[in-house]
Amino acid sequence: MIQQAGSKLCADQIGRQIFELMERLFPLHRSQTGACNRMTLDIISEIIPLEVFESPSGSQAFDWTIPQEWSIQAAYISLGGERLVNYADSNLCVLNGSQPIRGEFHFAELKEHLFAHPTIPDAIPYRTAFFREQWGFCVTQAQLKLLESLDGPFEVVIDSAETQGSLTYAETNTRPDAPETFLIWAHCCHPSLANDNLSGMAVATYLAHELAEHPTRYNYKVVFAPATIGAINWIAQQSSLESIVGGIVLSLLGDDDNFHYKKSPRQNSVVNKVFQLIKGETRDKECAIELLEFEPFGYDERQFCSPATNLDVGRLTRALPAQFPEYHTSLDNLDLVKPENLAQSFKALMRAIEIFDANETVQNKNGHCEPFLQPHNLFQAYGENRELQVDFETVMWVLNLADGSQDLIDMSLRSGKPFDQVVSAVQALKRTGLIQSAEEVRS
Amino acid sequence: MIQQAGSKLCADQIGRQIFELMERLFPLHRSQTGACNRMTLDIISEIIPLEVFESPSGSQAFDWTIPQEWSIQAAYISLGGERLVNYADSNLCVLNGSQPIRGEFHFAELKEHLFAHPTIPDAIPYRTAFFREQWGFCVTQAQLKLLESLDGPFEVVIDSAETQGSLTYAETNTRPDAPETFLIWAHCCHPSLANDNLSGMAVATYLAHELAEHPTRYNYKVVFAPATIGAINWIAQQSSLESIVGGIVLSLLGDDDNFHYKKSPRQNSVVNKVFQLIKGETRDKECAIELLEFEPFGYDERQFCSPATNLDVGRLTRALPAQFPEYHTSLDNLDLVKPENLAQSFKALMRAIEIFDANETVQNKNGHCEPFLQPHNLFQAYGENRELQVDFETVMWVLNLADGSQDLIDMSLRSGKPFDQVVSAVQALKRTGLIQSAEEVRS
Amino acid sequence: MIQQAGSKLCADQIGRQIFELMERLFPLHRSQTGACNRMTLDIISEIIPLEVFESPSGSQAFDWTIPQEWSIQAAYISLGGERLVNYADSNLCVLNGSQPIRGEFHFAELKEHLFAHPTIPDAIPYRTAFFREQWGFCVTQAQLKLLESLDGPFEVVIDSAETQGSLTYAETNTRPDAPETFLIWAHCCHPSLANDNLSGMAVATYLAHELAEHPTRYNYKVVFAPATIGAINWIAQQSSLESIVGGIVLSLLGDDDNFHYKKSPRQNSVVNKVFQLIKGETRDKECAIELLEFEPFGYDERQFCSPATNLDVGRLTRALPAQFPEYHTSLDNLDLVKPENLAQSFKALMRAIEIFDANETVQNKNGHCEPFLQPHNLFQAYGENRELQVDFETVMWVLNLADGSQDLIDMSLRSGKPFDQVVSAVQALKRTGLIQSAEEVRS
Repeated sequence: MIQQAGSKLCADQIGRQIFELMERLFPLHRSQTGACNRMTLDIISEIIPLEVFESPSGSQAFDWTIPQEWSIQAAYISLGGERLVNYADSNLCVLNGSQPIRGEFHFAELKEHLFAHPTIPDAIPYRTAFFREQWGFCVTQAQLKLLESLDGPFEVVIDSAETQGSLTYAETNTRPDAPETFLIWAHCCHPSLANDNLSGMAVATYLAHELAEHPTRYNYKVVFAPATIGAINWIAQQSSLESIVGGIVLSLLGDDDNFHYKKSPRQNSVVNKVFQLIKGETRDKECAIELLEFEPFGYDERQFCSPATNLDVGRLTRALPAQFPEYHTSLDNLDLVKPENLAQSFKALMRAIEIFDANETVQNKNGHCEPFLQPHNLFQAYGENRELQVDFETVMWVLNLADGSQDLIDMSLRSGKPFDQVVSAVQALKRTGLIQSAEEVRS
Repeated sequence: MIQQAGSKLCADQIGRQIFELMERLFPLHRSQTGACNRMTLDIISEIIPLEVFESPSGSQAFDWTIPQEWSIQAAYISLGGERLVNYADSNLCVLNGSQPIRGEFHFAELKEHLFAHPTIPDAIPYRTAFFREQWGFCVTQAQLKLLESLDGPFEVVIDSAETQGSLTYAETNTRPDAPETFLIWAHCCHPSLANDNLSGMAVATYLAHELAEHPTRYNYKVVFAPATIGAINWIAQQSSLESIVGGIVLSLLGDDDNFHYKKSPRQNSVVNKVFQLIKGETRDKECAIELLEFEPFGYDERQFCSPATNLDVGRLTRALPAQFPEYHTSLDNLDLVKPENLAQSFKALMRAIEIFDANETVQNKNGHCEPFLQPHNLFQAYGENRELQVDFETVMWVLNLADGSQDLIDMSLRSGKPFDQVVSAVQALKRTGLIQSAEEVRS
Repeated sequence: MIQQAGSKLCADQIGRQIFELMERLFPLHRSQTGACNRMTLDIISEIIPLEVFESPSGSQAFDWTIPQEWSIQAAYISLGGERLVNYADSNLCVLNGSQPIRGEFHFAELKEHLFAHPTIPDAIPYRTAFFREQWGFCVTQAQLKLLESLDGPFEVVIDSAETQGSLTYAETNTRPDAPETFLIWAHCCHPSLANDNLSGMAVATYLAHELAEHPTRYNYKVVFAPATIGAINWIAQQSSLESIVGGIVLSLLGDDDNFHYKKSPRQNSVVNKVFQLIKGETRDKECAIELLEFEPFGYDERQFCSPATNLDVGRLTRALPAQFPEYHTSLDNLDLVKPENLAQSFKALMRAIEIFDANETVQNKNGHCEPFLQPHNLFQAYGENRELQVDFETVMWVLNLADGSQDLIDMSLRSGKPFDQVVSAVQALKRTGLIQSAEEVRS
């Protein structure tokens, strides 16, 4: 079992480290493809070892085609030499993936290429032109009004290019020799947005860093890839998904909201049960967690939980995508994200992994009646008050439920005994030889 | 899919048509067998094609025997030439199936052959002597008191006869070539009672008439047969019930009550799910529907849902049998029934059939990840506001749930998306070739 | 079916008889083994035939070893010849199974061998030294204070011995030739405690006595054995447990509390359903019954419901073990127990056995439609008010549910019809030949 991961790292320290990584990555203009994505992975690889993969433009992933690689040098709208909208000020001001343009336009012509936020005056919205031919600018409401008042003609330049290249993604495996893998997934395609999804990437980086220190049962595979096309391409690239016993998609981990865990569709999946347990553990605590049913919207859990792929992959966020005002705008910046929130997210995920990794199915070796526990200092008679090595009632529950069909999480949920106490009882009972892992029974 | 059946028929018009048919059929003295049953079917066959079947008296239906054919010419109780109770005034006044009698009786002897309603003074109760040897009269409380006060002896005549004949029933099939059939059942054995069950017969007639206009997937078989013995005989006559994929028993469709759907015993039957869906669609509307668990009382659903017959047959009524004061009395007459209620019942049933007919199981052909929807005008990026041919979220739900185990009703119930929207999404996705009917997959 | 067991025995009489047996057994100093256990069984065998078994000390029961036989002659703590604590006054005052001791001790040394009740001043607690080497006295708080005030040195004597002998248990079988057995279990290892578990032993004795009078379907095997080691040894001794179709552990049946039934782990076991039914029958009555989920603490149901043993054995008590103040103290004496409570417990158990014994699965022989019930006086037309031999609606329910998968308890729970009415309907329908026992169908 991962021994209280939190104890190895001071909470303050881990929150600061995650935040500092976000500060370094924030300025880069990530997209579905391109140089900034590679630079992002280079920086992460200073912290954890990364294997980087390149899928060439034009290659197929199911019925999708890997797009051309997109790059941009400059973009602006100017009048009389004054740049009223300028890519140099914010990489959000151009449609991500915009086609190039160069010309003179009056406002009336330009209008359909301008996108302002419907409700927040000073936010630049984040909009994309992926998989379609479009050019355009994202502006504040003030910019839009100014352009309308001036009418033009404006000088309009988007100096972007699409060239034969590749889509980049990267993986780290904390224990490549383990036969079974738990997937941790963070999308890495957003430009200067902080909560979505620098927070997911940075927390995932430090999870990988921490997990490499522990002799875990499972391999933890952390993947950084662009959303949607990156997930689809990754699934298409795998020769088999059989070794993946569960997983989680990470995003929106730095804001002030409570946690939201979105279930994988199979109600009784282990990863769902882990978060059901954590919900119980954190009840009445400040970091409460709400469990949501699966729905086919949101992040890349959509792909992992598609009917034929059918992996047990849940999703952890604090705020919910598209349900907080700063979502996909220039206001989702580093001010929205706090080191203490990142640390709390990191800690919750380490706890989930700790449970997942310790979970197993055990079997009572004889199974007839209670074993003779007195020699093992595991028995307490009524009225006695002796110091046992583990909680007596939990020992009795484990022995009773160890019929080979229930795992340790089931035992904790059924008995109401804390999971760690169940683990302690199982460890003590294994030492006595009275129970064993169901795996050992089978082999 | 049946294209909004309601639109083909003005609601006012259909209500009036159904009511007019009821007015023509009301006076006939229907019974388990006999000439009035055949006359009833003759009138219905002016509207829809009917195949009429005759099962001879004395033939067997499981452990039941088809009874002799019953007829009646006259019946009365008179004193001094004055007819105090007279069959000519109401065909309810003789026990349906009464044995003949002719003689003089004092009230003390006559008493046990007289049946008055226990609580409603001016109602003549409807009582039967089916499958037993009995004669008698049904009277109002006033008639009973009068007879008691006069004492008699009265001249008592029931000029009825039982002769070798047959039991009559009829079917229409809206699409006889379809391999699977949905059963619509109306009992036709009641004399001058309106809601029970002229309303069911008349609504069923116009359902058959309307459905014949549509290229439905299923054959809709409407059967008119006497209750109990008619249903038992019909089941016994079928060489196989395998093609019957569901069905519904109709009665009590003209009164002012809300709808009551009585479930078939198999909780998850398609016909039950159809009405669960309609319950959701009509929530907070004037024609609310309540769902009731199966119980082995009521109408002919008892026979269809017996353990070995075991068909998925539900029942739709407005009021509940035996639970409204006019039930089985002379007060269940045409005044109790309103054209607008009949129209609403017709419409609810057409909606149920529309859903049942459109329902199917579909399968996502690749199933790995989301397909590339952009070329099909089925995709909408976050923040975009484009006109799609169908609701984007519903498309995503259908793709995600199309694992071959769930039908369109399941998808609507799971996603909360309206059934018609699910149908539209399925149609659009079928056109793209991304999903197909599970039937096609199997063949 | 057991014909209303209660009617054979006046409630007053049975309560008194059970109480009188308890009065005779109360003084005996029972333990895990020994002469007083045999004397207890001798007295019981005056009422019912008992087969007594002896398992020799040192023999194995799974990983447990049958202990040496324990005996005690005297025990006291005295000062200046005055016996301040004396075994002659209460057999609870020595640890049950205490090792012998003889010597002089000051209070400081004696202290760790003295056990007083933590909260009740004048109670002597009941404590044991089973399966460990320990000597000691159980005292009231007053005795403890007195000993402390006097300091000593005290003369301390426990004249006990452990010798090669055996563990004693006994069984009675009410119908040894029946192929299937229901187990009634009472632990018999407690010294002078009344509710726990003289009440269980005495009620079980009279259940066996009563059941021997009835031509039951099952054999009822009543076992008297020491708790834990006795149950484990009994299970280990059985060549097969296959014939045991259910069972119940009895204790705490004389106090004023309501009934508590603790379920066997298999939710849907017949014994659980029996008590679910009784809960319905006794709702709003004075002898209400609460159903509790299984947990692996309490009495010998722990052993019967261990994963490999896996019998459907529930437990009936009034108060709950360890949850009433007198539990395992000298205050659990005959004052705590009332004849009328014992009679009520007896009656509830007879009712449970009556249901268990009458329960079976029946099958509708034809199964298509309702059978023709008119010749059997089992049919009632709407509006008729005839005297049927059994309730008509219950007949209809039985016919409908008799698909071979549901037993009579299921039918009662599903239909809401009283169990006895379901039994009557089944009996009447069997006489007509319309249904038969599922067993007959199989053979």
